[in-house]
Amino acid sequence: MASPLPGTISILNQCVNMTVTGSTSEEMRPESVILHPLGTAAAPEPDLLCIFGTGDLGRSLGLRLLQSGYRVVYGSRRPHSCGPLPQGAQVMSHAAAAHSASLIFICVHREHYDFLEKMTHHLQGKVLVDLSNNLKKGIYPEANATYLQRLVPGAAVVKGLNTLSAWALQNGLLAGKQVYLCGDSAEAKQAVAVMATKLGLTVLDRGSLSAARELEDFPLRLFPEWRLPLSVAVGLTAFFFFYLLLRDVIYAYVEQDKDISYRIMVSLGNKVFPIVSLIMLSLCYLPGVIAAVLQLYRGTKYKRFPDWLDRWMVCRKQMGLLALGFAFLHAIYTFIIPIRYAVRHKLISRVVDEMKNNKTTPFYFDDTEAWGTDSFYLLGILGLLLYVLLGLTSLPSVGGSLSWREFSFIQSKLGHLTLFICTSHGYIYGWNKFLSPSTYKWYTPPGYMLCLIVPSVVLVLKLLLLLPCVDRTLTRIRQGWERSQPSEETGEVKATNL
Amino acid sequence: MASPLPGTISILNQCVNMTVTGSTSEEMRPESVILHPLGTAAAPEPDLLCIFGTGDLGRSLGLRLLQSGYRVVYGSRRPHSCGPLPQGAQVMSHAAAAHSASLIFICVHREHYDFLEKMTHHLQGKVLVDLSNNLKKGIYPEANATYLQRLVPGAAVVKGLNTLSAWALQNGLLAGKQVYLCGDSAEAKQAVAVMATKLGLTVLDRGSLSAARELEDFPLRLFPEWRLPLSVAVGLTAFFFFYLLLRDVIYAYVEQDKDISYRIMVSLGNKVFPIVSLIMLSLCYLPGVIAAVLQLYRGTKYKRFPDWLDRWMVCRKQMGLLALGFAFLHAIYTFIIPIRYAVRHKLISRVVDEMKNNKTTPFYFDDTEAWGTDSFYLLGILGLLLYVLLGLTSLPSVGGSLSWREFSFIQSKLGHLTLFICTSHGYIYGWNKFLSPSTYKWYTPPGYMLCLIVPSVVLVLKLLLLLPCVDRTLTRIRQGWERSQPSEETGEVKATNL
Amino acid sequence: MASPLPGTISILNQCVNMTVTGSTSEEMRPESVILHPLGTAAAPEPDLLCIFGTGDLGRSLGLRLLQSGYRVVYGSRRPHSCGPLPQGAQVMSHAAAAHSASLIFICVHREHYDFLEKMTHHLQGKVLVDLSNNLKKGIYPEANATYLQRLVPGAAVVKGLNTLSAWALQNGLLAGKQVYLCGDSAEAKQAVAVMATKLGLTVLDRGSLSAARELEDFPLRLFPEWRLPLSVAVGLTAFFFFYLLLRDVIYAYVEQDKDISYRIMVSLGNKVFPIVSLIMLSLCYLPGVIAAVLQLYRGTKYKRFPDWLDRWMVCRKQMGLLALGFAFLHAIYTFIIPIRYAVRHKLISRVVDEMKNNKTTPFYFDDTEAWGTDSFYLLGILGLLLYVLLGLTSLPSVGGSLSWREFSFIQSKLGHLTLFICTSHGYIYGWNKFLSPSTYKWYTPPGYMLCLIVPSVVLVLKLLLLLPCVDRTLTRIRQGWERSQPSEETGEVKATNL
Repeated sequence: MASPLPGTISILNQCVNMTVTGSTSEEMRPESVILHPLGTAAAPEPDLLCIFGTGDLGRSLGLRLLQSGYRVVYGSRRPHSCGPLPQGAQVMSHAAAAHSASLIFICVHREHYDFLEKMTHHLQGKVLVDLSNNLKKGIYPEANATYLQRLVPGAAVVKGLNTLSAWALQNGLLAGKQVYLCGDSAEAKQAVAVMATKLGLTVLDRGSLSAARELEDFPLRLFPEWRLPLSVAVGLTAFFFFYLLLRDVIYAYVEQDKDISYRIMVSLGNKVFPIVSLIMLSLCYLPGVIAAVLQLYRGTKYKRFPDWLDRWMVCRKQMGLLALGFAFLHAIYTFIIPIRYAVRHKLISRVVDEMKNNKTTPFYFDDTEAWGTDSFYLLGILGLLLYVLLGLTSLPSVGGSLSWREFSFIQSKLGHLTLFICTSHGYIYGWNKFLSPSTYKWYTPPGYMLCLIVPSVVLVLKLLLLLPCVDRTLTRIRQGWERSQPSEETGEVKATNL
Repeated sequence: MASPLPGTISILNQCVNMTVTGSTSEEMRPESVILHPLGTAAAPEPDLLCIFGTGDLGRSLGLRLLQSGYRVVYGSRRPHSCGPLPQGAQVMSHAAAAHSASLIFICVHREHYDFLEKMTHHLQGKVLVDLSNNLKKGIYPEANATYLQRLVPGAAVVKGLNTLSAWALQNGLLAGKQVYLCGDSAEAKQAVAVMATKLGLTVLDRGSLSAARELEDFPLRLFPEWRLPLSVAVGLTAFFFFYLLLRDVIYAYVEQDKDISYRIMVSLGNKVFPIVSLIMLSLCYLPGVIAAVLQLYRGTKYKRFPDWLDRWMVCRKQMGLLALGFAFLHAIYTFIIPIRYAVRHKLISRVVDEMKNNKTTPFYFDDTEAWGTDSFYLLGILGLLLYVLLGLTSLPSVGGSLSWREFSFIQSKLGHLTLFICTSHGYIYGWNKFLSPSTYKWYTPPGYMLCLIVPSVVLVLKLLLLLPCVDRTLTRIRQGWERSQPSEETGEVKATNL
Repeated sequence: MASPLPGTISILNQCVNMTVTGSTSEEMRPESVILHPLGTAAAPEPDLLCIFGTGDLGRSLGLRLLQSGYRVVYGSRRPHSCGPLPQGAQVMSHAAAAHSASLIFICVHREHYDFLEKMTHHLQGKVLVDLSNNLKKGIYPEANATYLQRLVPGAAVVKGLNTLSAWALQNGLLAGKQVYLCGDSAEAKQAVAVMATKLGLTVLDRGSLSAARELEDFPLRLFPEWRLPLSVAVGLTAFFFFYLLLRDVIYAYVEQDKDISYRIMVSLGNKVFPIVSLIMLSLCYLPGVIAAVLQLYRGTKYKRFPDWLDRWMVCRKQMGLLALGFAFLHAIYTFIIPIRYAVRHKLISRVVDEMKNNKTTPFYFDDTEAWGTDSFYLLGILGLLLYVLLGLTSLPSVGGSLSWREFSFIQSKLGHLTLFICTSHGYIYGWNKFLSPSTYKWYTPPGYMLCLIVPSVVLVLKLLLLLPCVDRTLTRIRQGWERSQPSEETGEVKATNL
């Protein structure tokens, strides 16, 4: 690395002190393990950082760096006319700016990297951070960072921070965000990691520069954590749509010669949506129950869950939000029932029929029916209210204002209550139809019966887990207790876990 | 306190400077009052912090400390195999780690504290921060921190930060959070307070270590600020439910011998919910009006409000959100009215009756009725819209993006407008029934009359406060003016208040 | 500026070092341009800051400063009894506090500034930051800051930070917030700017102290970014309300002698709201389309858009949220249709009429009608769902958790899909009425036809922009390509833009 300018030495003192201390303590205690050498003497930990490019990203990054206590110098081909820059930053020619700092952010489109080739001697030994992204995957044969390294072989190129947007930088939305780094020089990566940590970011090292392509594809990903839940939702919706199409519309057409295909638009949807919603909600809580059973069976919490369970647990929130979406659709479909043409037609026809047949007591008021349907609606409304509550606490700003215990109370206790209420809503829907043979058209069970299976299983398992004896064992396991007498080694793992 | 390792002395320079300055200025100016001695020479203000325990909490805390500019060393029994730790942290044996720092975070379950007893000589003079929590209240005879202090009498135990979750630490959600500290050593507490402040936390000192039990119970509390509003809501709901049950269902059974008990499920709810919602909303705005009247009466804003008023004002937001929840239920109950069995039955019966009686002009269109009911619905819908708007601005992220004046405009002006519209909605509901004697079954007024009392009082009082002469006086009082000529003493209080 | 007290010199070392470096590097590189001199030797960059006033704002500001690493001293007339102050702060008499720091925040109401006049000699050469606001515009002949400067002519008054509320300061909601400064001394402003930047704020210099009045009016503004969208919404609502009043109610009264004025309350609203909602939604996406056409026409993205387009694009989010509000009203108006008196009356009348006329096949079931109305409802419901999704991602905390690509996917792709679905909803509404002459009462087209014009234009233009050849050119332009061969100068602008 090039030595910094004479003027900047004094302000590096603090860092140097830290460095010296770090290595001293390392020498003194042979049992210590340095995970990541906290900067050796040669490592670049600059106080003054350089940014090439005065576009949106460059400006926002500079602002953020200034706010984190760094000094910033911009490199520009036209230092005298490059628009408004953050207060406190300097702007120079590219060459001068490169000289003044050992870490340079390249906030320039890949298409314009060629100017860097002409100034390789200025960039000798510098750390170049490539933040660029492409608009599409695979439009260039090599990753931007690899291309940059090829243009400036004397510099240490680090790919990273490219998942940050100018908007997030400007609005200070960095706290807790994870960023990825890769590069061939461990020292260069370390310097960038220290800088990123000071910005409030969490850094993940992804290895050598050959991972650059992967990192450049990250910002192009669309909702990766929604992929699995969305597939499940689409699959369930498609299955139940065709299943009910067969049982309702095609059955009526074949067996009764009635064309009720108009029902496809709304009636069928209002059967499919609550089914999918309930199944998705139960799929939210199934992995938690499976995990508890697994921990009970293994008698320890220190064994990793199988991969499929891990992946499932990670997307529970998305599952739940999709379930809420389907419940929302179900609610609105229900609200518009009475204004539908077919429903009003049926109502009027019925009155006219009753009158024509001239019955004396045409309208016996069925008290059981009144109680049943009203209970059905009541449970549905309560379920929706709880659903919305769960959704609200999933909002980052609301969830963030809850304590851990409050959050887990809402998501676990209230979540299982929601599942229980919505499942009851389903049971009441089919209350007196379960045993009637006419329900089983073409020997198939109706959709609502199928959709009650998974929620019922989850609720029964959860109930078993809540039995005092089981609950006590599970609590002890989660506090670190193990059934088999742990060896000294595993005892240590327990001791460090809070 | 034990002196830090030789290697760490240099990096403490800045702090020492600060310390010296602090005490110098104190000596120089006898009129100055030091609220909290900003660190005496012996106070531990370490740059290098030690964490015992590499579990979730330990890892997240370490990450946060690194992001705030501290160096972190982990103490572990198995330093070579303790899983992924934050980038930049070191890991050592417990003893070595304890030696290197003067402040040690204990991120270990209480069940495993015993290993600390064996290394008391390493912990001599150190500050131990006990972050542990228990799963339930009162499962141990003494607080975790008291137990720790008993195990390691030579260290200064500080209980605190235990309300922080690993999740909040990891996601950088600390800004503005309040944490509590307690401990017997003022210096140790001061050191922890300085560290916590640097993490962006607001620290509240709760006294000696005997308060540890109380602090350990904090994370086990569930929605403490919701307790009062929830009690009020449950109380009101229960009262009005039984009141209306008596007036509607039991009255019909006793006097008219009709069993309309099926109405309990939905009809009764749709009467109780809007009543409770309106009363809760008016209870949101009543304390503000009372406070204004009190300030006018006292002629100053510098007297504290009585405790009950303070407690009431603190939970206005929760009151309002519960009112919104009840309004939401009322809306959905209303939407499903036409699909209820009883309603459809009544509609059909009515048609059939009309036909049977063979009236010539069976359906006179009552224009007043049409205007009245439509106005009733219009006001209800507008009220719901405003309710939702108020709820949205209660979301932390939305409220945080508003200026103070915008927030107060929404919550005060729009809030009172919502109350006015919802109250009108209630008045129109009973418009021509107020004077009819049949309304007063068993000499009791109907529910909607009872629920209009509090909102009407609030609105009338608010209207009086908006009279120019009253408003002017109130504004002057809130700017610091006092009716009785203030003495020199109170004048000072005014001068410092913005 | 007055030199700081002896005791504070040592802690200024770091800043002085920085300063020296800054000026050195400036001298060495003649091509460098210093945008804002990063502190000259005389500039006050105090580590110890003074706050006059111990009210809410003073306390919150002090807390925030302490959390950002500053030392804080309060000036109070009664240092021994001024209530709870943030942990770590000192409190002294005004004079002593003023002596100890070179930067003093005045957190006192303007009404009490007179005490500052008596201590002008203590304030000689200090930087005074005036944070005060007034309750109304224009109640004083001169700005608070101008008045302060007149009282203490020897100090450098800087007006600024007055848009921060005590609440935002306390809750750490400062990240990315923009604050304004003005003042006659560039050095004083610079010192305040550096401090504000360290608090995480973005500083905008508004010039000399004569801008103070403008800055003091900022906190009194109410939703400035909502002004234009609200005007558009009110204008559209008023226009369509009177247009439909004429076509529906007055037409019926004049031509058919029927009084259907009761429809004004709900029916008319349920026609106006969806119309305004759809137009507002299309006005969200129109400026984006215009901008793309403009860029294609100009062949470059480096020319500024006309002012009206800029202003329009800035308030697209607010336009969309208002459109969502109107869509929400439309949905609720639709849900309550069946419980309206007029609707139920019509239904019953129709049955009775049918019976009286004694038709044999009174109720032919129109399959096309069933399909048509159900599709209409389906599109409406899907549109509402997407609308709500768009609204949810507009929440600061949700939008902040999305990557740039995800956000733009939702707001652009899903937004245009929403527009398409809602426009189809409108087309189906009028499907068989477009060619019927009875539709054109008094030769005016119905409202839904008018409201389909703008959305249709936007959708057609967007479709044209999505044609592969057009899209490719636009993408290249947005990556920095220009149609006319760029000169060396413009090439530079391109190179720095990311």
